[in-house]
Amino acid sequence: MDLATLAPSPGLATTTTLETLETPCLVLDADRMDRNIKRLRNRLDDLGVSLRPHLKTAKSIDVARRFMSAPEGPATVSTLKEAEQFAAAGVRDVIYAVGIAPSKLARVAELRAKGVDLVVVLDTVEQAQAVAEASRGAGMRIPAMIEIDCDGHRSGVVPGNHAQLLEIGQTLAAGAELRGVLTHAGDSYKGGGDEAQQRFAEAERLAVVEAAQLLRGARLPCPVVSVGSTPTAHHAKDLTGVTEVRAGVFVFFDLVMAGIGICQVEDIALSVLATVIGHQREKGWIITDGGWMSLSRDRGTSRQAIDQGYGLVSDIDGNAYQDIIVVDANQEHGILAVRPGSNARLPSLAIGDRVRILPNHACATAAQHPVYHVVRSGSHAVEACWPRFGGW
Amino acid sequence: MDLATLAPSPGLATTTTLETLETPCLVLDADRMDRNIKRLRNRLDDLGVSLRPHLKTAKSIDVARRFMSAPEGPATVSTLKEAEQFAAAGVRDVIYAVGIAPSKLARVAELRAKGVDLVVVLDTVEQAQAVAEASRGAGMRIPAMIEIDCDGHRSGVVPGNHAQLLEIGQTLAAGAELRGVLTHAGDSYKGGGDEAQQRFAEAERLAVVEAAQLLRGARLPCPVVSVGSTPTAHHAKDLTGVTEVRAGVFVFFDLVMAGIGICQVEDIALSVLATVIGHQREKGWIITDGGWMSLSRDRGTSRQAIDQGYGLVSDIDGNAYQDIIVVDANQEHGILAVRPGSNARLPSLAIGDRVRILPNHACATAAQHPVYHVVRSGSHAVEACWPRFGGW
Repeated sequence: MDLATLAPSPGLATTTTLETLETPCLVLDADRMDRNIKRLRNRLDDLGVSLRPHLKTAKSIDVARRFMSAPEGPATVSTLKEAEQFAAAGVRDVIYAVGIAPSKLARVAELRAKGVDLVVVLDTVEQAQAVAEASRGAGMRIPAMIEIDCDGHRSGVVPGNHAQLLEIGQTLAAGAELRGVLTHAGDSYKGGGDEAQQRFAEAERLAVVEAAQLLRGARLPCPVVSVGSTPTAHHAKDLTGVTEVRAGVFVFFDLVMAGIGICQVEDIALSVLATVIGHQREKGWIITDGGWMSLSRDRGTSRQAIDQGYGLVSDIDGNAYQDIIVVDANQEHGILAVRPGSNARLPSLAIGDRVRILPNHACATAAQHPVYHVVRSGSHAVEACWPRFGGW
Repeated sequence: MDLATLAPSPGLATTTTLETLETPCLVLDADRMDRNIKRLRNRLDDLGVSLRPHLKTAKSIDVARRFMSAPEGPATVSTLKEAEQFAAAGVRDVIYAVGIAPSKLARVAELRAKGVDLVVVLDTVEQAQAVAEASRGAGMRIPAMIEIDCDGHRSGVVPGNHAQLLEIGQTLAAGAELRGVLTHAGDSYKGGGDEAQQRFAEAERLAVVEAAQLLRGARLPCPVVSVGSTPTAHHAKDLTGVTEVRAGVFVFFDLVMAGIGICQVEDIALSVLATVIGHQREKGWIITDGGWMSLSRDRGTSRQAIDQGYGLVSDIDGNAYQDIIVVDANQEHGILAVRPGSNARLPSLAIGDRVRILPNHACATAAQHPVYHVVRSGSHAVEACWPRFGGW
């Protein structure tokens, strides 16, 4: 990222640093983010597919602009609020990648009427009928993608259920618009190593490519063939037949991704800045003002080989201490201690000293905060404040 | 609560109902809330102590006004943002009940200069020195409470460490203001039955009453003697020597509190309204748009006798289904299923039908939302929208 792209926020005093920010707050290392984006972009360029970034992790137009191919998109979102917010900032090519509820179609039609190519996702005939009905009501053809269940993880038409796939496709083609097929290898977040990830990626590809073939064989259109998850996007060897890849958490990365080998701890761009507010020396505890309200309740590493508690503790420069984690958290208190079983020593931190906590799950931790405080690697100067939004 | 106190929000169409709200969203049953408030208030009246409600659960002036004794307070908060927001709405008597970081004292002095009696909390000599120094700098005596660790749960001076208690007390009395002593029986959230809770409550009382006696014996002032947690507030038999009780989550209650017997499931006033968006019939799953972003990642019942997953499922009227829980959740997807081991049957719910999810932890779930949609028990009409805030 060029220095020029980090425009300081208007209200930000030029002297704001990691020492003077109010804590707890969210810190974003722009150099790490930039490397993460470049890495996946280069990889997908080599595979010849385009990236449709998932903006649900970032929920920030400043971040979105840095990893979308163009200001208009393409992009993926998880809520209509995201679709509306990003549309207001000029994004025009959006997939809302959560199964559509019929009551949400009025908002979809409204955004489409404003010139946003917003596409919905579904996996039942009932939903396809609702989209066809809403299309008739709005005097437009609302485009929909059919979700395919590549791994039994959550939603989607089960591969092999040809009758259901064709009935949904025909319903859409007749009364709305069949835009394509989409899948998400949710099970890939459980890890399993490079070979397992390559299998997850190939299962993702096969699930949608076969569904697309079936639809096209029935003379139904299927222009878009969409796969995506951060782990599979970093492991796919061949994406023949796929037109786009969706991924989101890679922009920041987190401890769950590090735990399954998709990134290194040193790649994690997001942290929560916290201040030491107490000690329980007999117990080996350091108390900070970074509780679960700022870290989130996500314990995504609890089932991984290395349990990171509520987060891995770094010094103010962003360098992780050896085996120092947030062992427990209350709403506005975090308890730092040596990881159980480790021989590491607790760092010497006084009341008022600051640490940066690396998150288990970037999507969950970022969601607890209204703004990103943007720094560069190794610097304490806050160069920009990027607002983020929540809600539905 | 009188009907008159539920003023409809200006922008709210009179026809808004649980059927027409955008989902997911937060629903508050005002009748249940009202009962919860009355129950604890009656209890504390009988014990002859005043309630200093903790506003960290609600983070809403509309809710706060319903459970504070007066518009001016007293009140307890967990962040300076809460102190500032409630002060702006007229609250004047506030304890900020998280150990003070020296860098936050400028904001404390600013609020005090505006006429808010904001009191800080601490448990180290270093913090007491910082408060004394800030008092000198601001030309005012900033009042502080000394936190006592009644159960080894988190923070506070260990009972029996008289030297530390007296040194903190003397430092405050000399250079700031020693307002009193405070403790919180955090371990009471683990449950253990009525007798265990009565012991937790008595341990809370003894910890602060003995600390107050020690301070007073050394001719130090100690006007306020403060205890509090929702479980102990509902079990204390005797509060001799205590001047006030702090509690917060009781206003809404939640599954964690029901799981340790402090309330019934039918008392839980908060729920997340969600819409059915899919089925995986072979797996016995119903998919909704209520994922962890709306429910929070809190799994507080996971170590209780009955694990409620990400929440217990109710029908749209707020009546819990037998053994139907959110067995798993992604960011914007919730998976409803029969509780493992139960013979209950999945309710027949179609695409578009709505359910209400009772939360594990009201503080965490409410924090995911910008507004409360207020209804009465058994009614679908939304009678008010109460905004809430977050941040620090």
